[in-house]
Amino acid sequence: MATKFVTTRRVEFSDTDAAGIMHFVAFFRMMEQAEHELLRSVGLSVVMHDATGSISWPRVNAMCDFQSAARFEDLLEIEVRIARLGKTSVTYSHRFLRNREQLATGEITAVCCRIREGKPPKSIAIPAAMAKKLKPFVAETDELITD
Amino acid sequence: MATKFVTTRRVEFSDTDAAGIMHFVAFFRMMEQAEHELLRSVGLSVVMHDATGSISWPRVNAMCDFQSAARFEDLLEIEVRIARLGKTSVTYSHRFLRNREQLATGEITAVCCRIREGKPPKSIAIPAAMAKKLKPFVAETDELITD
Amino acid sequence: MATKFVTTRRVEFSDTDAAGIMHFVAFFRMMEQAEHELLRSVGLSVVMHDATGSISWPRVNAMCDFQSAARFEDLLEIEVRIARLGKTSVTYSHRFLRNREQLATGEITAVCCRIREGKPPKSIAIPAAMAKKLKPFVAETDELITD
Amino acid sequence: MATKFVTTRRVEFSDTDAAGIMHFVAFFRMMEQAEHELLRSVGLSVVMHDATGSISWPRVNAMCDFQSAARFEDLLEIEVRIARLGKTSVTYSHRFLRNREQLATGEITAVCCRIREGKPPKSIAIPAAMAKKLKPFVAETDELITD
Repeated sequence: MATKFVTTRRVEFSDTDAAGIMHFVAFFRMMEQAEHELLRSVGLSVVMHDATGSISWPRVNAMCDFQSAARFEDLLEIEVRIARLGKTSVTYSHRFLRNREQLATGEITAVCCRIREGKPPKSIAIPAAMAKKLKPFVAETDELITD
Repeated sequence: MATKFVTTRRVEFSDTDAAGIMHFVAFFRMMEQAEHELLRSVGLSVVMHDATGSISWPRVNAMCDFQSAARFEDLLEIEVRIARLGKTSVTYSHRFLRNREQLATGEITAVCCRIREGKPPKSIAIPAAMAKKLKPFVAETDELITD
Repeated sequence: MATKFVTTRRVEFSDTDAAGIMHFVAFFRMMEQAEHELLRSVGLSVVMHDATGSISWPRVNAMCDFQSAARFEDLLEIEVRIARLGKTSVTYSHRFLRNREQLATGEITAVCCRIREGKPPKSIAIPAAMAKKLKPFVAETDELITD
Repeated sequence: MATKFVTTRRVEFSDTDAAGIMHFVAFFRMMEQAEHELLRSVGLSVVMHDATGSISWPRVNAMCDFQSAARFEDLLEIEVRIARLGKTSVTYSHRFLRNREQLATGEITAVCCRIREGKPPKSIAIPAAMAKKLKPFVAETDELITD
């Protein structure tokens, strides 16, 4: 059974806009922060170094559906699952809740890349040791549907 | 034939991240800025006031596909079209280019809402005078496909 | 003896810039977040409502001295003291540390204001009940010097 | 007589906060953007490369006094002068205006540094060719006082 990673974020004043609510880009910022926290929780980082150089995860897609507004000082619960763990990419699936009310759901797909200075990132197979640490967060299809 | 709205944005240092490229949330910020600039270009604003109070456009969905990285001081061209002009909502479609190379494409759907303090936004039919000003930007299906 | 308020912030990827370090504006964002957290800790908020309307704290000055760079995933300790509690204003004094190394020190001065829609904020005397809750954080001069 | 550099910025929706005005950190972001634009105007960049590696300008101090609020869609005029051109550092002085009304004034001091990966930045004398290009913006004391 899949593990969901859960963290929280307080809506800061600098996250709000003149409509009096959390600006929509703050959802994307928090989605990424939650993903990075998930990685840290299993001893990984979004930027890692090995003998050949560094490995990082450029985003190829990000999306979010907004159902209800978040406001200043709200405490948001952010759930992260892995919707798909591919050979070279990971799709993280996010859910924002405030007191059990769902505010937004989103997804970010990131590709495992070898980074070399001055060159474009080159996608590589996710190293086995990394994939193993990510596997527990892979959601089963049923689970995502019924959730 | 549909008009596309075109504007430019310079990648600022504060838009970049430790990977040396423009952070992905900056694409979303610029998508919204381009949308607001389109509105201003036809005498509208994302927040308008009438006798009853104010009308604004909360976002219900935002997405972006990233194809190539943008870097500090790059001059980005941002094209905006209206992919769909509904009864209560507008879907803006965005394209980022740097020297004709496409870097990213995205979409934002916003819903026309009556805003009343302390109450959740209530969706309303887009006022006819607004819809009329938006119509020239509505992309024909063929155009989006062949572009 | 004065109480210092202490909180922590993780340097997020979105806080970094192409120089590979935390962008300087993130220090200001965190200074404000720490101030708001101090207010919450004593049951106050930076935006409060009473019978007459709302009271908030526009900033009149902000400054920061940067001594050493913060990096992605660093855990920063932020100390907040009140350097001066005036009749209508508060000057917060901040210190950023990473493993006891001081990275930056800053100050923000905010003025207690009555907020009325469509009018500029009007400064008022800090209500006695608020001032009482802030008093424990007022730093004695000696303390600030020897710290 | 000194030249002041002048640029403009539109207050974007993402720059505003729940108080309905431009958030104070946006002033700092724009101060830096104006500085970088001044550098570009004379063929320089805040990050430059030579045979030895790269030269950049870490900030050692930033401050801003806020006199009046900026609002969504305001067009701000930003003036930049060089208050002090030292051997290793530059102090930029900024002024924000809206229709000739002064909204804020600020300063940023940056130090010319040799950047080497994995090492802390090392301050160096500003290369003569750079200093020469910055000199026209150095404000005379009288000018700053009477302005």
